[in-house]
Amino acid sequence: MTTSIGILHPGEMGISLAATALNTGMDVYWCSAGRSGASSERANDLGIHSLNSLEALCNTCEILISVCPPHAAMNVADEVIACNYQGIYADVNAIAPTTVKTIAASMANAGIEFVDGGIIGMPATQHGTTWLYLCGNSADKVASCFSGGPLETSVLGPEIGKASGLKMCFAANSKGTAALHTAILATAETMGVRDALEKQWAIYTPGFTEKSQARIRQVARKAWRFSGEMKEIAATMEAAGLPREFFDAAAQVYERQKSLKDAGQEPEIEEILEKVTKK
Amino acid sequence: MTTSIGILHPGEMGISLAATALNTGMDVYWCSAGRSGASSERANDLGIHSLNSLEALCNTCEILISVCPPHAAMNVADEVIACNYQGIYADVNAIAPTTVKTIAASMANAGIEFVDGGIIGMPATQHGTTWLYLCGNSADKVASCFSGGPLETSVLGPEIGKASGLKMCFAANSKGTAALHTAILATAETMGVRDALEKQWAIYTPGFTEKSQARIRQVARKAWRFSGEMKEIAATMEAAGLPREFFDAAAQVYERQKSLKDAGQEPEIEEILEKVTKK
Repeated sequence: MTTSIGILHPGEMGISLAATALNTGMDVYWCSAGRSGASSERANDLGIHSLNSLEALCNTCEILISVCPPHAAMNVADEVIACNYQGIYADVNAIAPTTVKTIAASMANAGIEFVDGGIIGMPATQHGTTWLYLCGNSADKVASCFSGGPLETSVLGPEIGKASGLKMCFAANSKGTAALHTAILATAETMGVRDALEKQWAIYTPGFTEKSQARIRQVARKAWRFSGEMKEIAATMEAAGLPREFFDAAAQVYERQKSLKDAGQEPEIEEILEKVTKK
Repeated sequence: MTTSIGILHPGEMGISLAATALNTGMDVYWCSAGRSGASSERANDLGIHSLNSLEALCNTCEILISVCPPHAAMNVADEVIACNYQGIYADVNAIAPTTVKTIAASMANAGIEFVDGGIIGMPATQHGTTWLYLCGNSADKVASCFSGGPLETSVLGPEIGKASGLKMCFAANSKGTAALHTAILATAETMGVRDALEKQWAIYTPGFTEKSQARIRQVARKAWRFSGEMKEIAATMEAAGLPREFFDAAAQVYERQKSLKDAGQEPEIEEILEKVTKK
Protein backbone atom coordinates (compact mmCIF):
# COMPACT_ATOMS: atom_id res chain seq x y z
CA MET A 1 0.00 0.00 0.00
CA THR A 2 1.45 3.33 -1.07
CA THR A 3 1.18 6.22 1.34
CA SER A 4 1.97 9.85 0.50
CA ILE A 5 4.54 11.08 2.95
CA GLY A 6 6.02 14.57 3.37
CA ILE A 7 9.45 15.33 4.76
CA LEU A 8 9.97 18.60 6.66
CA HIS A 9 12.81 19.19 5.75
CA PRO A 10 15.27 17.32 3.55
CA GLY A 11 18.54 18.04 5.35
CA GLU A 12 21.06 15.20 5.38
CA MET A 13 19.07 13.23 7.92
CA GLY A 14 15.74 14.08 6.29
CA ILE A 15 17.02 12.84 2.94
CA SER A 16 18.03 9.53 4.44
CA LEU A 17 14.46 9.16 5.73
CA ALA A 18 13.11 10.11 2.31
CA ALA A 19 15.38 7.55 0.64
CA THR A 20 14.17 4.83 3.00
CA ALA A 21 10.52 5.74 2.34
CA LEU A 22 11.19 5.60 -1.42
CA ASN A 23 12.83 2.18 -0.99
CA THR A 24 9.65 1.08 0.81
CA GLY A 25 7.52 2.19 -2.17
CA MET A 26 6.00 5.36 -0.70
CA ASP A 27 5.17 8.58 -2.56
CA VAL A 28 7.57 11.08 -1.02
CA TYR A 29 7.08 14.85 -1.08
CA TRP A 30 8.83 17.92 0.20
CA CYS A 31 8.07 21.62 0.24
CA SER A 32 10.58 23.85 -1.50
CA ALA A 33 9.24 27.19 -0.17
CA GLY A 34 11.90 29.00 1.82
CA ARG A 35 14.40 26.12 1.71
CA SER A 36 18.06 26.35 0.78
CA GLY A 37 19.68 25.45 -2.53
CA ALA A 38 21.36 22.55 -0.77
CA SER A 39 17.94 21.13 0.21
CA SER A 40 16.70 21.47 -3.38
CA GLU A 41 19.78 19.76 -4.69
CA ARG A 42 19.43 16.85 -2.25
CA ALA A 43 15.70 16.49 -3.04
CA ASN A 44 16.21 16.68 -6.81
CA ASP A 45 19.09 14.19 -6.68
CA LEU A 46 16.89 11.70 -4.87
CA GLY A 47 13.90 12.42 -7.12
CA ILE A 48 11.22 13.14 -4.53
CA HIS A 49 8.19 15.26 -5.49
CA SER A 50 8.50 18.97 -4.88
CA LEU A 51 5.55 21.12 -3.79
CA ASN A 52 5.82 24.88 -3.58
CA SER A 53 3.87 25.56 -0.38
CA LEU A 54 3.38 24.00 3.04
CA GLU A 55 -0.39 24.15 2.41
CA ALA A 56 0.05 21.99 -0.69
CA LEU A 57 2.19 19.52 1.27
CA CYS A 58 -0.40 19.37 4.06
CA ASN A 59 -3.22 18.77 1.54
CA THR A 60 -1.28 16.08 -0.32
CA CYS A 61 0.27 13.97 2.43
CA GLU A 62 -1.25 11.40 4.79
CA ILE A 63 1.88 11.43 6.95
CA LEU A 64 4.26 14.31 7.70
CA ILE A 65 7.68 13.78 9.23
CA SER A 66 9.30 16.73 11.01
CA VAL A 67 13.09 16.45 10.96
CA CYS A 68 14.80 19.74 11.80
CA PRO A 69 17.18 21.30 14.34
CA PRO A 70 15.75 21.05 17.90
CA HIS A 71 15.14 24.77 18.28
CA ALA A 72 12.91 24.79 15.17
CA ALA A 73 10.69 21.81 16.08
CA MET A 74 7.93 23.76 17.84
CA ASN A 75 7.72 26.30 15.04
CA VAL A 76 7.44 23.64 12.30
CA ALA A 77 4.60 22.00 14.26
CA ASP A 78 2.76 25.32 14.63
CA GLU A 79 3.06 26.03 10.90
CA VAL A 80 1.55 22.65 10.07
CA ILE A 81 -1.35 23.23 12.49
CA ALA A 82 -1.95 26.63 10.85
CA CYS A 83 -2.37 24.83 7.49
CA ASN A 84 -5.28 22.82 8.93
CA TYR A 85 -3.48 19.54 8.27
CA GLN A 86 -5.51 16.44 9.18
CA GLY A 87 -3.16 13.46 8.80
CA ILE A 88 -0.50 11.86 10.98
CA TYR A 89 2.34 14.10 12.20
CA ALA A 90 5.56 12.45 13.38
CA ASP A 91 8.11 14.60 15.17
CA VAL A 92 11.43 12.73 15.06
CA ASN A 93 13.57 15.60 16.36
CA ALA A 94 16.09 15.65 19.19
CA ILE A 95 13.77 17.28 21.72
CA ALA A 96 12.82 16.56 25.32
CA PRO A 97 9.75 14.44 26.10
CA THR A 98 8.31 17.53 27.85
CA THR A 99 8.66 19.52 24.60
CA VAL A 100 7.19 16.61 22.65
CA LYS A 101 4.19 16.48 24.98
CA THR A 102 3.55 20.20 24.42
CA ILE A 103 3.54 19.63 20.66
CA ALA A 104 1.40 16.49 21.05
CA ALA A 105 -1.21 18.48 23.01
CA SER A 106 -1.38 21.19 20.31
CA MET A 107 -1.72 18.51 17.64
CA ALA A 108 -4.51 16.74 19.55
CA ASN A 109 -6.38 20.06 19.85
CA ALA A 110 -6.09 20.47 16.09
CA GLY A 111 -7.34 16.93 15.41
CA ILE A 112 -3.96 15.73 14.16
CA GLU A 113 -2.73 12.23 15.07
CA PHE A 114 0.69 12.60 16.72
CA VAL A 115 3.64 10.21 16.67
CA ASP A 116 6.79 10.72 18.76
CA GLY A 117 10.08 9.73 17.20
CA GLY A 118 13.81 9.82 17.76
CA ILE A 119 16.67 9.05 15.41
CA ILE A 120 19.87 7.47 16.67
CA GLY A 121 22.93 7.44 14.43
CA MET A 122 24.21 9.37 11.44
CA PRO A 123 22.16 9.80 8.24
CA ALA A 124 21.52 6.22 7.15
CA THR A 125 23.53 4.91 4.21
CA GLN A 126 23.59 1.24 5.18
CA HIS A 127 21.62 -1.26 7.27
CA GLY A 128 22.31 -1.49 11.01
CA THR A 129 23.78 1.96 11.58
CA THR A 130 20.78 4.27 12.06
CA TRP A 131 17.58 3.72 14.05
CA LEU A 132 14.23 5.47 13.90
CA TYR A 133 12.42 4.88 17.20
CA LEU A 134 8.70 5.61 17.25
CA CYS A 135 5.88 5.61 19.79
CA GLY A 136 2.22 6.60 19.88
CA ASN A 137 -1.02 4.99 18.71
CA SER A 138 -0.08 5.35 15.03
CA ALA A 139 3.60 4.51 15.43
CA ASP A 140 3.22 1.20 13.54
CA LYS A 141 1.67 3.00 10.60
CA VAL A 142 4.62 5.41 10.39
CA ALA A 143 7.12 2.57 10.86
CA SER A 144 5.58 0.66 7.95
CA CYS A 145 6.54 3.53 5.61
CA PHE A 146 10.20 2.93 6.44
CA SER A 147 10.51 -0.85 6.36
CA GLY A 148 12.55 -0.95 3.15
CA GLY A 149 15.91 0.10 4.68
CA PRO A 150 18.61 1.20 5.11
CA LEU A 151 17.13 3.03 8.13
CA GLU A 152 16.01 0.59 10.86
CA THR A 153 12.74 1.22 12.70
CA SER A 154 11.64 0.19 16.17
CA VAL A 155 8.29 0.87 17.87
CA LEU A 156 8.32 1.49 21.64
CA GLY A 157 4.57 1.26 22.25
CA PRO A 158 1.74 3.79 22.52
CA GLU A 159 3.10 6.11 25.23
CA ILE A 160 4.25 9.49 23.85
CA GLY A 161 7.72 10.55 25.10
CA LYS A 162 9.56 7.23 25.08
CA ALA A 163 11.14 7.57 21.63
CA SER A 164 12.32 11.12 22.26
CA GLY A 165 13.40 10.18 25.79
CA LEU A 166 15.52 7.35 24.45
CA LYS A 167 17.05 9.67 21.87
CA MET A 168 17.86 12.22 24.59
CA CYS A 169 19.63 9.60 26.72
CA PHE A 170 21.65 8.25 23.81
CA ALA A 171 22.71 11.76 22.75
CA ALA A 172 23.42 12.67 26.38
CA ASN A 173 26.19 10.11 26.33
CA SER A 174 27.56 10.63 22.83
CA LYS A 175 27.37 14.42 22.62
CA GLY A 176 27.60 15.06 26.37
CA THR A 177 30.83 13.08 26.60
CA ALA A 178 32.34 15.01 23.68
CA ALA A 179 31.44 18.30 25.41
CA LEU A 180 32.90 17.07 28.70
CA HIS A 181 36.14 16.03 27.04
CA THR A 182 36.35 19.38 25.27
CA ALA A 183 35.97 21.24 28.57
CA ILE A 184 38.56 19.04 30.29
CA LEU A 185 41.14 19.45 27.52
CA ALA A 186 40.56 23.20 27.44
CA THR A 187 41.01 23.39 31.22
CA ALA A 188 44.26 21.42 30.96
CA GLU A 189 45.44 23.68 28.13
CA THR A 190 44.76 26.83 30.18
CA MET A 191 46.73 25.38 33.10
CA GLY A 192 49.63 24.22 30.91
CA VAL A 193 49.16 20.52 31.68
CA ARG A 194 47.54 19.20 28.50
CA ASP A 195 50.68 17.32 27.47
CA ALA A 196 50.99 15.70 30.88
CA LEU A 197 47.29 14.78 30.87
CA GLU A 198 47.48 13.22 27.43
CA LYS A 199 50.59 11.28 28.45
CA GLN A 200 48.79 9.94 31.51
CA TRP A 201 45.71 9.02 29.47
CA ALA A 202 47.97 7.19 27.01
CA ILE A 203 49.24 5.02 29.87
CA TYR A 204 45.82 4.30 31.37
CA THR A 205 43.73 3.96 28.22
CA PRO A 206 45.86 3.68 25.08
CA GLY A 207 44.18 5.47 22.17
CA PHE A 208 41.85 7.49 24.39
CA THR A 209 43.36 10.89 23.54
CA GLU A 210 43.32 10.27 19.80
CA LYS A 211 39.75 8.93 19.83
CA SER A 212 38.50 11.74 22.02
CA GLN A 213 40.17 14.47 19.93
CA ALA A 214 38.90 12.97 16.69
CA ARG A 215 35.38 13.08 18.10
CA ILE A 216 35.75 16.68 19.35
CA ARG A 217 36.96 17.78 15.92
CA GLN A 218 34.25 15.79 14.15
CA VAL A 219 31.41 17.56 15.99
CA ALA A 220 32.85 21.11 16.02
CA ARG A 221 31.13 22.25 12.81
CA LYS A 222 27.79 20.84 14.04
CA ALA A 223 28.08 22.56 17.43
CA TRP A 224 25.72 25.37 16.36
CA ARG A 225 22.80 22.95 16.38
CA PHE A 226 24.01 20.81 19.29
CA SER A 227 23.58 23.60 21.83
CA GLY A 228 19.79 23.49 21.37
CA GLU A 229 19.87 19.72 21.73
CA MET A 230 21.85 20.01 24.97
CA LYS A 231 19.17 22.33 26.39
CA GLU A 232 16.54 19.71 25.52
CA ILE A 233 18.61 17.05 27.31
CA ALA A 234 18.93 19.36 30.33
CA ALA A 235 15.12 19.66 30.41
CA THR A 236 14.79 15.87 30.05
CA MET A 237 17.07 15.22 33.02
CA GLU A 238 15.37 17.84 35.17
CA ALA A 239 11.95 16.34 34.46
CA ALA A 240 13.33 12.91 35.41
CA GLY A 241 14.67 14.15 38.79
CA LEU A 242 18.37 14.34 37.84
CA PRO A 243 20.68 17.40 37.82
CA ARG A 244 20.29 19.31 34.54
CA GLU A 245 23.58 21.20 34.98
CA PHE A 246 25.69 18.67 33.05
CA PHE A 247 23.84 19.78 29.95
CA ASP A 248 23.65 23.47 30.75
CA ALA A 249 27.45 23.23 30.66
CA ALA A 250 27.45 21.13 27.48
CA ALA A 251 25.18 23.71 25.81
CA GLN A 252 27.70 26.43 26.65
CA VAL A 253 30.60 24.37 25.29
CA TYR A 254 28.80 23.96 21.96
CA GLU A 255 27.41 27.50 21.91
CA ARG A 256 30.95 28.89 22.12
CA GLN A 257 31.87 26.91 18.98
CA LYS A 258 29.00 28.13 16.81
CA SER A 259 31.25 30.27 14.63
CA LEU A 260 32.95 27.06 13.45
CA LYS A 261 29.81 26.19 11.45
CA ASP A 262 31.25 27.41 8.18
CA ALA A 263 34.81 26.15 8.65
CA GLY A 264 35.95 24.62 5.36
CA GLN A 265 37.49 21.61 7.08
CA GLU A 266 37.58 20.08 10.55
CA PRO A 267 39.13 22.70 12.86
CA GLU A 268 42.35 21.83 14.69
CA ILE A 269 41.93 20.87 18.33
CA GLU A 270 43.80 24.02 19.48
CA GLU A 271 41.32 26.26 17.67
CA ILE A 272 38.39 24.49 19.31
CA LEU A 273 39.93 24.70 22.80
CA GLU A 274 40.60 28.41 22.25
CA LYS A 275 36.97 28.99 21.22
CA VAL A 276 35.45 27.26 24.25
CA THR A 277 37.66 29.05 26.79
CA LYS A 278 36.32 32.31 28.19
CA LYS A 279 39.16 34.79 28.58
CA MET B 1 70.23 9.81 52.78
CA THR B 2 67.42 9.06 55.18
CA THR B 3 64.74 11.68 55.67
CA SER B 4 62.07 11.62 58.36
CA ILE B 5 58.72 11.85 56.68
CA GLY B 6 55.26 12.11 58.24
CA ILE B 7 52.03 10.90 56.62
CA LEU B 8 48.81 12.78 57.40
CA HIS B 9 46.91 10.39 57.37
CA PRO B 10 47.41 6.70 56.66
CA GLY B 11 44.19 5.87 54.81
CA GLU B 12 44.52 3.34 51.99
CA MET B 13 46.22 5.85 49.72
CA GLY B 14 48.35 7.28 52.53
CA ILE B 15 49.57 3.81 53.43
CA SER B 16 50.67 3.17 49.86
CA LEU B 17 52.74 6.38 50.05
CA ALA B 18 54.17 5.28 53.41
CA ALA B 19 55.08 1.88 51.97
CA THR B 20 56.85 3.51 49.03
CA ALA B 21 58.79 5.82 51.37
CA LEU B 22 59.80 2.81 53.49
CA ASN B 23 60.94 0.99 50.32
CA THR B 24 63.07 4.05 49.56
CA GLY B 25 64.73 3.84 53.01
CA MET B 26 63.00 6.76 54.71
CA ASP B 27 61.99 7.00 58.37
CA VAL B 28 58.22 7.10 58.20
CA TYR B 29 55.96 8.47 60.95
CA TRP B 30 52.30 9.00 61.54
CA CYS B 31 50.23 10.61 64.27
CA SER B 32 47.72 8.36 66.01
CA ALA B 33 45.83 11.12 67.85
CA GLY B 34 42.18 11.18 66.83
CA ARG B 35 42.58 8.57 64.08
CA SER B 36 40.44 5.50 63.52
CA GLY B 37 41.20 1.92 64.50
CA ALA B 38 41.49 1.13 60.78
CA SER B 39 44.29 3.72 60.42
CA SER B 40 46.12 2.26 63.43
CA GLU B 41 45.79 -1.23 62.04
CA ARG B 42 47.15 -0.20 58.64
CA ALA B 43 50.04 1.74 60.22
CA ASN B 44 50.93 -1.09 62.60
CA ASP B 45 50.75 -3.70 59.85
CA LEU B 46 53.21 -1.67 57.78
CA GLY B 47 55.44 -0.94 60.80
CA ILE B 48 55.73 2.85 60.55
CA HIS B 49 56.56 4.89 63.69
CA SER B 50 53.59 6.14 65.67
CA LEU B 51 53.63 9.50 67.48
CA ASN B 52 50.80 10.52 69.75
CA SER B 53 50.42 14.19 68.82
CA LEU B 54 50.57 16.38 65.75
CA GLU B 55 53.12 18.58 67.59
CA ALA B 56 55.42 15.60 68.01
CA LEU B 57 55.04 14.73 64.31
CA CYS B 58 55.81 18.34 63.30
CA ASN B 59 58.90 18.41 65.55
CA THR B 60 60.18 15.06 64.27
CA CYS B 61 59.65 15.24 60.50
CA GLU B 62 61.52 17.14 57.77
CA ILE B 63 58.74 16.46 55.29
CA LEU B 64 55.00 16.14 55.88
CA ILE B 65 52.62 14.69 53.31
CA SER B 66 48.95 15.61 53.55
CA VAL B 67 46.74 12.91 52.03
CA CYS B 68 43.10 13.22 53.10
CA PRO B 69 39.60 13.75 51.65
CA PRO B 70 39.42 17.04 49.68
CA HIS B 71 37.11 18.78 52.14
CA ALA B 72 39.65 18.24 54.98
CA ALA B 73 42.78 19.52 53.18
CA MET B 74 42.56 23.14 54.33
CA ASN B 75 41.97 22.13 57.94
CA VAL B 76 44.93 19.73 58.03
CA ALA B 77 47.16 22.51 56.68
CA ASP B 78 45.93 24.97 59.31
CA GLU B 79 46.59 22.47 62.11
CA VAL B 80 50.17 21.98 60.91
CA ILE B 81 50.76 25.74 60.76
CA ALA B 82 49.39 26.03 64.33
CA CYS B 83 52.09 23.56 65.45
CA ASN B 84 54.80 25.94 64.23
CA TYR B 85 56.11 23.32 61.79
CA GLN B 86 59.21 24.44 59.84
CA GLY B 87 59.89 21.73 57.24
CA ILE B 88 58.51 20.92 53.79
CA TYR B 89 54.75 20.42 53.50
CA ALA B 90 53.39 18.56 50.48
CA ASP B 91 49.66 18.61 49.84
CA VAL B 92 48.87 15.73 47.48
CA ASN B 93 45.08 15.96 47.80
CA ALA B 94 42.43 16.15 45.09
CA ILE B 95 41.88 19.88 45.37
CA ALA B 96 41.69 22.76 42.90
CA PRO B 97 44.82 24.79 42.07
CA THR B 98 43.00 27.82 43.52
CA THR B 99 42.57 25.97 46.83
CA VAL B 100 46.20 24.84 46.67
CA LYS B 101 47.36 28.41 46.15
CA THR B 102 45.43 29.54 49.23
CA ILE B 103 47.17 26.85 51.29
CA ALA B 104 50.54 27.70 49.70
CA ALA B 105 50.14 31.36 50.70
CA SER B 106 49.37 30.45 54.32
CA MET B 107 52.36 28.11 54.37
CA ALA B 108 54.66 30.79 52.94
CA ASN B 109 53.49 33.22 55.63
CA ALA B 110 54.36 30.63 58.25
CA GLY B 111 57.81 30.02 56.75
CA ILE B 112 56.92 26.51 55.56
CA GLU B 113 58.21 25.29 52.18
CA PHE B 114 55.19 24.16 50.15
CA VAL B 115 54.97 21.43 47.50
CA ASP B 116 51.87 20.83 45.37
CA GLY B 117 51.02 17.24 44.56
CA GLY B 118 48.39 15.08 42.92
CA ILE B 119 47.93 11.33 42.91
CA ILE B 120 46.53 9.53 39.88
CA GLY B 121 45.42 5.93 40.23
CA MET B 122 44.33 3.58 43.00
CA PRO B 123 46.49 2.98 46.10
CA ALA B 124 49.75 1.65 44.63
CA THR B 125 50.41 -2.06 44.93
CA GLN B 126 52.53 -2.51 41.82
CA HIS B 127 54.74 -0.45 39.49
CA GLY B 128 53.14 1.51 36.67
CA THR B 129 49.63 1.87 38.08
CA THR B 130 49.80 4.91 40.40
CA TRP B 131 51.48 8.28 39.90
CA LEU B 132 52.46 10.97 42.36
CA TYR B 133 52.85 14.25 40.45
CA LEU B 134 54.69 17.04 42.25
CA CYS B 135 55.57 20.67 41.61
CA GLY B 136 57.19 23.52 43.50
CA ASN B 137 60.76 24.48 44.35
CA SER B 138 61.23 21.48 46.65
CA ALA B 139 59.34 18.99 44.50
CA ASP B 140 62.52 17.04 43.65
CA LYS B 141 63.33 16.63 47.32
CA VAL B 142 59.88 15.17 48.01
CA ALA B 143 60.07 12.97 44.92
CA SER B 144 63.39 11.52 46.07
CA CYS B 145 61.66 10.12 49.18
CA PHE B 146 59.43 7.99 46.93
CA SER B 147 61.85 6.65 44.34
CA GLY B 148 61.77 3.06 45.65
CA GLY B 149 58.39 2.09 44.14
CA PRO B 150 55.77 0.84 43.62
CA LEU B 151 54.36 4.41 43.42
CA GLU B 152 55.77 6.31 40.41
CA THR B 153 56.74 9.97 40.81
CA SER B 154 56.91 12.76 38.27
CA VAL B 155 57.97 16.39 38.81
CA LEU B 156 56.17 19.08 36.76
CA GLY B 157 58.51 21.99 37.54
CA PRO B 158 58.47 24.80 40.09
CA GLU B 159 55.06 26.35 39.40
CA ILE B 160 52.51 25.61 42.16
CA GLY B 161 49.14 24.41 40.80
CA LYS B 162 50.23 22.17 37.94
CA ALA B 163 50.23 18.89 39.84
CA SER B 164 46.83 19.51 41.40
CA GLY B 165 45.53 20.87 38.08
CA LEU B 166 46.58 17.70 36.30
CA LYS B 167 44.95 15.57 39.00
CA MET B 168 41.73 17.58 38.65
CA CYS B 169 41.63 17.06 34.87
CA PHE B 170 42.30 13.34 35.14
CA ALA B 171 39.61 12.90 37.81
CA ALA B 172 37.25 15.10 35.80
CA ASN B 173 37.25 12.45 33.13
CA SER B 174 37.27 9.30 35.25
CA LYS B 175 34.86 10.38 38.01
CA GLY B 176 32.95 12.92 35.91
CA THR B 177 32.16 10.29 33.29
CA ALA B 178 30.93 7.86 35.94
CA ALA B 179 28.64 10.57 37.35
CA LEU B 180 27.37 11.44 33.86
CA HIS B 181 26.60 7.79 33.07
CA THR B 182 24.82 7.41 36.41
CA ALA B 183 22.61 10.42 35.64
CA ILE B 184 21.85 9.17 32.12
CA LEU B 185 20.93 5.66 33.27
CA ALA B 186 18.76 7.09 36.05
CA THR B 187 16.99 9.37 33.55
CA ALA B 188 16.38 6.41 31.25
CA GLU B 189 15.10 4.34 34.18
CA THR B 190 12.63 7.08 35.20
CA MET B 191 11.33 7.29 31.62
CA GLY B 192 11.05 3.50 31.24
CA VAL B 193 13.60 3.28 28.41
CA ARG B 194 16.67 1.88 30.18
CA ASP B 195 16.34 -1.52 28.46
CA ALA B 196 16.03 0.12 25.05
CA LEU B 197 19.02 2.39 25.77
CA GLU B 198 21.20 -0.50 26.88
CA LYS B 199 20.18 -2.50 23.81
CA GLN B 200 21.14 0.42 21.58
CA TRP B 201 24.47 0.89 23.37
CA ALA B 202 25.15 -2.83 22.93
CA ILE B 203 24.81 -2.40 19.15
CA TYR B 204 26.94 0.74 18.93
CA THR B 205 29.63 -0.03 21.49
CA PRO B 206 29.60 -3.68 22.57
CA GLY B 207 30.49 -3.97 26.26
CA PHE B 208 29.78 -0.31 27.01
CA THR B 209 26.80 -0.94 29.30
CA GLU B 210 28.59 -3.62 31.33
CA LYS B 211 31.76 -1.54 31.70
CA SER B 212 29.85 1.59 32.61
CA GLN B 213 27.67 -0.18 35.19
CA ALA B 214 30.66 -1.91 36.75
CA ARG B 215 32.31 1.49 37.17
CA ILE B 216 29.17 3.08 38.64
CA ARG B 217 28.87 0.25 41.18
CA GLN B 218 32.59 0.39 41.95
CA VAL B 219 32.53 4.06 42.96
CA ALA B 220 29.18 4.10 44.81
CA ARG B 221 30.63 3.45 48.27
CA LYS B 222 33.27 6.16 47.73
CA ALA B 223 30.70 8.73 46.57
CA TRP B 224 30.67 10.43 50.01
CA ARG B 225 34.17 11.77 49.40
CA PHE B 226 33.82 12.28 45.65
CA SER B 227 31.27 15.06 46.02
CA GLY B 228 33.92 17.31 47.61
CA GLU B 229 36.33 16.44 44.81
CA MET B 230 33.70 17.32 42.19
CA LYS B 231 33.32 20.76 43.79
CA GLU B 232 37.09 21.24 43.54
CA ILE B 233 36.96 20.27 39.87
CA ALA B 234 34.09 22.75 39.33
CA ALA B 235 36.28 25.49 40.84
CA THR B 236 39.21 24.39 38.65
CA MET B 237 37.14 24.65 35.47
CA GLU B 238 35.66 27.98 36.44
CA ALA B 239 39.12 29.43 37.12
CA ALA B 240 40.26 28.15 33.70
CA GLY B 241 37.36 29.85 31.86
CA LEU B 242 35.20 26.73 31.29
CA PRO B 243 31.65 26.02 32.52
CA ARG B 244 31.75 24.61 36.06
CA GLU B 245 28.21 23.21 35.89
CA PHE B 246 29.30 19.74 34.68
CA PHE B 247 30.82 19.22 38.11
CA ASP B 248 28.12 20.96 40.12
CA ALA B 249 25.92 18.23 38.66
CA ALA B 250 28.49 15.49 39.32
CA ALA B 251 28.77 16.67 42.95
CA GLN B 252 25.00 16.28 43.33
CA VAL B 253 25.05 12.80 41.79
CA TYR B 254 27.66 11.67 44.32
CA GLU B 255 26.14 13.60 47.23
CA ARG B 256 22.87 11.70 46.75
CA GLN B 257 24.77 8.40 47.13
CA LYS B 258 26.54 9.26 50.38
CA SER B 259 24.41 6.88 52.44
CA LEU B 260 25.95 4.00 50.44
CA LYS B 261 29.27 4.55 52.28
CA ASP B 262 28.68 1.72 54.70
CA ALA B 263 27.13 -0.75 52.27
CA GLY B 264 28.60 -4.17 52.97
CA GLN B 265 29.09 -4.93 49.29
CA GLU B 266 28.82 -3.10 45.98
CA PRO B 267 25.22 -1.88 45.68
CA GLU B 268 23.12 -3.10 42.78
CA ILE B 269 22.74 -0.65 39.91
CA GLU B 270 18.99 -0.25 40.60
CA GLU B 271 19.67 0.85 44.18
CA ILE B 272 22.16 3.48 42.97
CA LEU B 273 19.79 4.82 40.29
CA GLU B 274 17.02 5.04 42.88
CA LYS B 275 19.29 7.01 45.26
CA VAL B 276 20.36 9.60 42.67
CA THR B 277 16.83 10.30 41.43
CA LYS B 278 14.94 13.07 43.18
CA LYS B 279 11.29 12.09 43.57
